[in-house]
Amino acid sequence: MLTLFHAPQSRSSAIMLLIEEMGIADKITVEITDIVRQDGSGHRDPANPHPEGKVPCLVHDGTVITERGAIMLYLTALFPEAGLAPRPGDAKRGAYLTWLFWYGSVMEPVLILDWAKAEVPGVRASLRGTAEINDRLHSALAKGPWLLGEEFSAADVLCHTPFAFYPPSMPDDPLIRDWVARCQARASVGRVKEQDAATLAARAA
Amino acid sequence: MLTLFHAPQSRSSAIMLLIEEMGIADKITVEITDIVRQDGSGHRDPANPHPEGKVPCLVHDGTVITERGAIMLYLTALFPEAGLAPRPGDAKRGAYLTWLFWYGSVMEPVLILDWAKAEVPGVRASLRGTAEINDRLHSALAKGPWLLGEEFSAADVLCHTPFAFYPPSMPDDPLIRDWVARCQARASVGRVKEQDAATLAARAA
Repeated sequence: MLTLFHAPQSRSSAIMLLIEEMGIADKITVEITDIVRQDGSGHRDPANPHPEGKVPCLVHDGTVITERGAIMLYLTALFPEAGLAPRPGDAKRGAYLTWLFWYGSVMEPVLILDWAKAEVPGVRASLRGTAEINDRLHSALAKGPWLLGEEFSAADVLCHTPFAFYPPSMPDDPLIRDWVARCQARASVGRVKEQDAATLAARAA
Repeated sequence: MLTLFHAPQSRSSAIMLLIEEMGIADKITVEITDIVRQDGSGHRDPANPHPEGKVPCLVHDGTVITERGAIMLYLTALFPEAGLAPRPGDAKRGAYLTWLFWYGSVMEPVLILDWAKAEVPGVRASLRGTAEINDRLHSALAKGPWLLGEEFSAADVLCHTPFAFYPPSMPDDPLIRDWVARCQARASVGRVKEQDAATLAARAA
């Protein structure tokens, strides 16, 4: 029994994209929920078992799994035949794990600091800078077309999302811009956008 | 062929701990390297293949793996008989993945913000606060004795290290303090401390 707690147009949209890409929508119950947003709108849903009321939150047979990278690893391991991840033993497994962890530990915190215009030198030195983020993506995409090379993976789903969600964060780099456009052109993106829009319209009605 | 780039008394010390706990020191070549520290000391080692010259950096048959959670997942998958991780399919696998990702995406960035006294409200709202970090640890340790319950795992190795490395970050919570003490009392910690001290002494001589 798999249940995903999802709030439209939020961090959990990347998991919705992964589910569409994997073709496993019929195997997961999606619970539409609400979260407190940065502008103070929204509210915490007591039905959501995430310890801090955030999303995404996956529940599998009573186990609560949070953090997008963890949920992606969990789902790709549960449905290995759906692709989207090099399996253990594959030569690209190490790079795959590195991208998923790098996203949460480095890329997203750095983008949040950029967005908040928070210039705290010690924090930057510990986490890394914007140029280093873009260099990493650029180096991988110079081989491309995806972060792992020929195969589209959950790493692309996860790492491209902030640029699509908040376009001012996108660097002026054609390689990165084209990769984000390739990701956004996939059918999964259109389907999740339609679902999210329908959910929000129903809520507003 | 497995090589770990390690700088004494740094983030890579947690991987050295894991290697000791797993009993796989004879299977990994440790290259002692140098990094640029927060106080400006040290230097970037051109021999270290980490894209930003940081540690830890694991190289396996030419593949570079960075980020501590990724390296922990990679090593525990490569040597499953060494324990330290619930395997895929185990009921605790989801919690294990959650802890490893939560550490890098939430706990460490929040501790870095605390250490730098960086109070940027938007960043806090996006990442979470210190009290929420401690609540997560407290809830798990109230069952204890380890984060996953009865079995000590890589999650304990990773999550306890900042409190041991920088004691002012430790909350005034007996459950957390005792857990850190239990982790630090393990033989692996003594061995890695001795190795690091010997390396630094040799460098200073």
